[in-house]
Amino acid sequence: MSLIAQLRKQNPVVLTVANMVTPADVANGLNVLGASPIMSKAPEEAEDMVKIAQVVTINLGTVEAAQRKEMLAVMDAAQFLEVPAVFDPVACAGSAYRTQVANELLNKYHFACIRGNAGEIAALAGIDWQSHGIDAGSGDGDLTAIAQKCAQKYQTVVAMTGAVDIITDGQKVIKVPFGSPLFAVHVGTGDMLSSIIAAFIGLGGSVLEAAATACEVFALAGQAAANKTQMPSRWYDMFLDNLYQADDQLIAAWQTELQKED
Amino acid sequence: MSLIAQLRKQNPVVLTVANMVTPADVANGLNVLGASPIMSKAPEEAEDMVKIAQVVTINLGTVEAAQRKEMLAVMDAAQFLEVPAVFDPVACAGSAYRTQVANELLNKYHFACIRGNAGEIAALAGIDWQSHGIDAGSGDGDLTAIAQKCAQKYQTVVAMTGAVDIITDGQKVIKVPFGSPLFAVHVGTGDMLSSIIAAFIGLGGSVLEAAATACEVFALAGQAAANKTQMPSRWYDMFLDNLYQADDQLIAAWQTELQKED
Amino acid sequence: MSLIAQLRKQNPVVLTVANMVTPADVANGLNVLGASPIMSKAPEEAEDMVKIAQVVTINLGTVEAAQRKEMLAVMDAAQFLEVPAVFDPVACAGSAYRTQVANELLNKYHFACIRGNAGEIAALAGIDWQSHGIDAGSGDGDLTAIAQKCAQKYQTVVAMTGAVDIITDGQKVIKVPFGSPLFAVHVGTGDMLSSIIAAFIGLGGSVLEAAATACEVFALAGQAAANKTQMPSRWYDMFLDNLYQADDQLIAAWQTELQKED
Repeated sequence: MSLIAQLRKQNPVVLTVANMVTPADVANGLNVLGASPIMSKAPEEAEDMVKIAQVVTINLGTVEAAQRKEMLAVMDAAQFLEVPAVFDPVACAGSAYRTQVANELLNKYHFACIRGNAGEIAALAGIDWQSHGIDAGSGDGDLTAIAQKCAQKYQTVVAMTGAVDIITDGQKVIKVPFGSPLFAVHVGTGDMLSSIIAAFIGLGGSVLEAAATACEVFALAGQAAANKTQMPSRWYDMFLDNLYQADDQLIAAWQTELQKED
Repeated sequence: MSLIAQLRKQNPVVLTVANMVTPADVANGLNVLGASPIMSKAPEEAEDMVKIAQVVTINLGTVEAAQRKEMLAVMDAAQFLEVPAVFDPVACAGSAYRTQVANELLNKYHFACIRGNAGEIAALAGIDWQSHGIDAGSGDGDLTAIAQKCAQKYQTVVAMTGAVDIITDGQKVIKVPFGSPLFAVHVGTGDMLSSIIAAFIGLGGSVLEAAATACEVFALAGQAAANKTQMPSRWYDMFLDNLYQADDQLIAAWQTELQKED
Repeated sequence: MSLIAQLRKQNPVVLTVANMVTPADVANGLNVLGASPIMSKAPEEAEDMVKIAQVVTINLGTVEAAQRKEMLAVMDAAQFLEVPAVFDPVACAGSAYRTQVANELLNKYHFACIRGNAGEIAALAGIDWQSHGIDAGSGDGDLTAIAQKCAQKYQTVVAMTGAVDIITDGQKVIKVPFGSPLFAVHVGTGDMLSSIIAAFIGLGGSVLEAAATACEVFALAGQAAANKTQMPSRWYDMFLDNLYQADDQLIAAWQTELQKED
């Protein structure tokens, strides 16, 4: 059975430690794909929440002292209960504080996957990169090599997303050449993707395949919507509705019909 | 005058102690019906906020230590000022911590109404029920009897929402057989309904009638939208726009035209 | 070059200390206009965040103790780094606590602009005004005189928004007669406008002109959408899509075609 079919059948529970800006988008993105979103802010219930989850996502987007404690409590439980986790290092190079929390999490825990843009992944890999707010920024260097270096450093799967998504376990590389610039216009699509990658990982198979499949379904649904409209609000609605409808047949049709980015 | 006409005329102010995921949906749901949403996180202003509100909603969705204090401060003021309150025990059986906070609130304060799914209401009633994340889960037992037991235990009106909504004061039972599975696809519709029930209660009449009317208008608007589209994003927009238009005439038309669930 | 063209070219970074209800709307409103939204909750990173921002917005909407500290940390950094700031005094007269925090901020720091409704601006100006929740409330008095008094008191530009927006530096007055009652139906349009005013201020020119231009583009985009639909969800989508498309030509067409409020 394909991963998307498994997702709709197994309805994995995804516990997201979310940022304050886009939790509704993250939850709705999981919902339309058939996963079950849960969110929590209380360290007191971290272990109980992890127990009912198949997978955890940690989002660095608006971390502060209380949420850092929540992240540690959730990851302690996830490590103990052997529940896989995804890390979204939002703007991790944007402040010394974020860098510090990101390093603390990465040094203390193993993540099955890290999902970020090129600037974030480069920063984690220890490569100098011009970052501009929460955007990817610009920089030189072979993106694939950066993603691989980051994956090797943290013994994880890296999903570096952008015009072309690069998913790698440090050796093998899968590229997803679909997408749309409209993803960058709607705030929170990156946060959604991180939790959707988690949902696929929660099925229990290969992490590399799970992450690549999540990126591909996400990018195809968005590009198919962008073929119908270039207006961001209409696009976002059609994108979500495409995710809701996505099955083997529709995904195969999108793969055939959509123009790949060079 | 019908309750919906009163709502649009009186514009009751609803103070919601909201979860972090869906506050915008809750506020917009109140707004399109003509109620006035306010939200607050500071115990320092709890009494002032309750003073300008006709009704209060406490949502357990992402409770943590600071918000628990806010809930207590708001309920202290509501009890003192005799402002009615609605409780939404989101995932109250999902963790020992949530169970504890829910019990603390229910033991310390009287709520005019509790709105939850079958799993949540069963847990509050002390009946064993399989819960799965924030969803209703599955279980046996007569749903009406569970709702009545919960209402009797807390001397409140219970609105147990699902395929058929069951509203009861422990004796009288009103069933709302309308709705759509799409309600479960959009995160936060339950949170919205709890605050909308509060808005109707804020009009000052019978709590049972207020809760039942809120459930019916909500379910009818959603089912009418589902008759036009099965795509979740389009559905949600049409649902909100239906709520915005809902008046006596439109509600009567929906009641006549829509197929009831068995 | 027009301000809207500059905005799309320079992509100013706007740091918003946001309320918990509408951060996604604020971020998307900035995004569709070409600005770069960032949000943060940690005082530890306030200075780093302000360093990458061209402008800061402080939103009082759901202030509590921890966020008050964040506001102070961000404003300390903004003052030190000479980054201009916009203040949105949401419901500042709604509680003694809010009044106190608003006064603390206004006494301690200089804001380039204050954006609020008539009730909020009147309260800051020290004029008695009937306030009703987060809405403007009703009251007597010459709105322009109130806006001017507030601007003079805090040596700032005031954007008092309503059926007609009044923008003043205390002497000069610019009125924006466009808009739609639908702005009041969607929660968070005021919050969006405050951060969008900030984005225009972040371009570095006249604050009065920046605030007036922001109000005009915002109101025109909303009124143009209201000419197409009176349904709030569809309206909001079209409004955002109008903002996304807004350029010199489209804005001029809206100015010519749309009926002004008397």
